[in-house]
Amino acid sequence: MQRKVISITMRIAEEAITNIYCSTFPTSLAIADLGCSSGPNTLYAVSELVKAVDEVRRKLGHQSPEYQVLLNDLPGNDFNAIFKSLAGFQENLKKQMGDGFGPCFFAGVPGSFYCRLFRAKSLHFVHSSYSLMWLSRVPEGLEGNKGNIYMASTSPPSVLKAYYMQFQTDFTLFLKCRSEELVAGGRMVLTIFGRRSQDPSSKECCYIWELLAVALNEMVLEEEKFDSFNIPQYTPSPFEVESQVKKEGSFTIDRLEISQVNWNAYDNEVHQSAAFEDGGYNVARCMRAVAEPLLVSHFGEAIIDEVFSRYGEIVASRMSKEKTEFVNVTVSVTRKG
Amino acid sequence: MQRKVISITMRIAEEAITNIYCSTFPTSLAIADLGCSSGPNTLYAVSELVKAVDEVRRKLGHQSPEYQVLLNDLPGNDFNAIFKSLAGFQENLKKQMGDGFGPCFFAGVPGSFYCRLFRAKSLHFVHSSYSLMWLSRVPEGLEGNKGNIYMASTSPPSVLKAYYMQFQTDFTLFLKCRSEELVAGGRMVLTIFGRRSQDPSSKECCYIWELLAVALNEMVLEEEKFDSFNIPQYTPSPFEVESQVKKEGSFTIDRLEISQVNWNAYDNEVHQSAAFEDGGYNVARCMRAVAEPLLVSHFGEAIIDEVFSRYGEIVASRMSKEKTEFVNVTVSVTRKG
Repeated sequence: MQRKVISITMRIAEEAITNIYCSTFPTSLAIADLGCSSGPNTLYAVSELVKAVDEVRRKLGHQSPEYQVLLNDLPGNDFNAIFKSLAGFQENLKKQMGDGFGPCFFAGVPGSFYCRLFRAKSLHFVHSSYSLMWLSRVPEGLEGNKGNIYMASTSPPSVLKAYYMQFQTDFTLFLKCRSEELVAGGRMVLTIFGRRSQDPSSKECCYIWELLAVALNEMVLEEEKFDSFNIPQYTPSPFEVESQVKKEGSFTIDRLEISQVNWNAYDNEVHQSAAFEDGGYNVARCMRAVAEPLLVSHFGEAIIDEVFSRYGEIVASRMSKEKTEFVNVTVSVTRKG
Repeated sequence: MQRKVISITMRIAEEAITNIYCSTFPTSLAIADLGCSSGPNTLYAVSELVKAVDEVRRKLGHQSPEYQVLLNDLPGNDFNAIFKSLAGFQENLKKQMGDGFGPCFFAGVPGSFYCRLFRAKSLHFVHSSYSLMWLSRVPEGLEGNKGNIYMASTSPPSVLKAYYMQFQTDFTLFLKCRSEELVAGGRMVLTIFGRRSQDPSSKECCYIWELLAVALNEMVLEEEKFDSFNIPQYTPSPFEVESQVKKEGSFTIDRLEISQVNWNAYDNEVHQSAAFEDGGYNVARCMRAVAEPLLVSHFGEAIIDEVFSRYGEIVASRMSKEKTEFVNVTVSVTRKG
C-alpha cells in the first residue's frame, strides 16, 4: 500500500521535476528536500527525482546537469548519520546511472522551513513529504481543549479555529519563503497528512491522536498537565491547501491529489519484516518516533514506556476491528513570474 | 601568540574577501570553509569574514549581500554539534551587526576536499586553515622509513620524495577542484602548517612527530607494526606551495606569508585556562585530537592512553629546554579568467 502511495506522489514529483528540467535545461539543478529526516528512506525521494531527470536528459541526448541536493531538517536531526551514508549512496547511484551522470553534490541545511533557508532564486525544485502538517508551534487559545490532545469531535469551535489559524500563518510563511528561494518557473511538490472531510475534527485525521489521548487518560496524570498538552499539527483538507496557495499568490497549482495509506504501512516501505505482522506495535513505534519528544518535554521521561505500551494495545485492538487509513494531500505548484 | 597569528592570517583573508566583494558587489556571496572541524573555533573565521564584508558595504552605503556559508569537513566530523550551535551563533551575529545585515544561510558539506564538493562557479571565497597539510592518504614507498613515523633526519631520500610526490598530487587536485568551483576573480586563502627550510625533514616541522615516535619506541611495540606506521601529512615550504600553484595554472598568487605559533598555543585561542600552564599536557592533548584516529586504526585502542601520557611528558621536557614553534604558510590566490 505504502509502495503504491509512494508511486503516486513520486510520479507527481517526477513529472514536476522533469518539467522544470525540460523548460530550461539548466547546467546545474538544485533540489531541496525539506524535512528529510534521518533513516533508511531519507535519500529515497532524491534518488528517484535524480533518476527521472537523468532518464529524460539521456533520451534527449543532453549532457548531465550538475545536481545540488540540499537536505533540510531541524538542527536536532541526525545529519551525521546521513552524511556517513552518503559515500555509499553516491557510489551506488553512480553505478546505477552509468557514465555521463552527475556530478551530484550534497549539503545538509539545518533549520525550520518556516524561515528562509536558501539564497534567493537558488532552487529549481522543492520536495517535502510528511513534514508540513507539523506546525511551527502549539497554537495559542487551546485552553478549551480539555480531555483532548489534538482536534477532536469534543473540541469547541475556538480550538478548531486556533488550529486552523496557526496552519494558515505557518503555511503562508512557508510559501512566501519558498517563493523567494525558487527560480521563476521553479516547481514544488508537497505531500502532507491531511483529510478529505471539511470537518477538521474528522475521524480520518484525528483518530490516531485520540487513541493516544485514551492511553494518556488511562494513566491518571495530573489533570492540569494533561489539559495543557496539545499536538502542534494540522491535517488540512485539499480545499484548505488550495485556498492558502491562491491567497498567498506566488504559485499556480498544477495538481492537487488525495491518496491514502494504511496505518500499518506508515513510515515504512522498506522493512517487510516480522514486525509488520504486529500492526499495533508497528504503528505505536512509528507514532512514538514523532510524538516522544513532545511527550518528554511536557510530561518527562518516566511515563513514556508505559504510554506507548498502552497505546500499542489500544491501536492493535482498533485496527483489528476497523479499516484505519491516513489521508495524504499532495499539491504540485509552479513559481509564477 | 595564537591570537597574533590569527590576526595575521585573518587580516590576509579579510583583505581577500573584501577585495572580491568590492570587485563585483554580488547580491549573494558564497563562502566555503574547508576542514571546518567542530569545536569552539569552528565559526570564528566565518564570522570575522562576514564582519569584514559588512563593514565595507556599510561604508559604501550598499545593501547587505545574502551570505551563503558552506562548512566542509570529512563525513566523520560532528556536524550535528555545529548545527545545534548555529541558532545561537546567528542570533549573536545579528545582534552584533545590527539592522540591515544578512541574511546569512548555513549548510554543511561532508566530503574530502580532494574531490569536487560544490557546483561549478558557485563560490566567491574559499578559506581553509590548518587542514591542507593532511594528505589524502599515506604515501606509497615508505618502506625505508624504519624507526620513524614521519619524515625525519634519518629518513632516506626515497621517503622524502614519496611524501613530496603525494603532496604535489593532492595539492594539485585540490587547486583543480577549487578552480572549477570558484567564480572568475574568486579568492582563496589557505593557511597550512609548513616550514621555512628547504629541507622537508627539518626540525621545525618534524620534531613534534619525532617526539611521538620516541613515545611509541619506548613502548616496545611489534617492530613490523611500528615500521609500517606513517603520518599522512606534509608540511610544505612557501616555495613548494608557490611552485605548485604556478604549475597548476588556474590561480595567481596575491600574497605568500610565513608566520609562527608556539606549540603551547596550538589549536586554541579561546581557552586561557589553567590547562595552559601545563604546556606539555596541552600539546599532547591537541596532538591527540589529530593523531588518535590514525593510531587507533593502526595499533588499536589499548595503547592510546599510555602513548599520550608518555608523549605529554616528553613534550613538556623539551618545551622547558628549547623554543618550540609551528610554522604557518599562508597563501592568498585569485582565480584567473
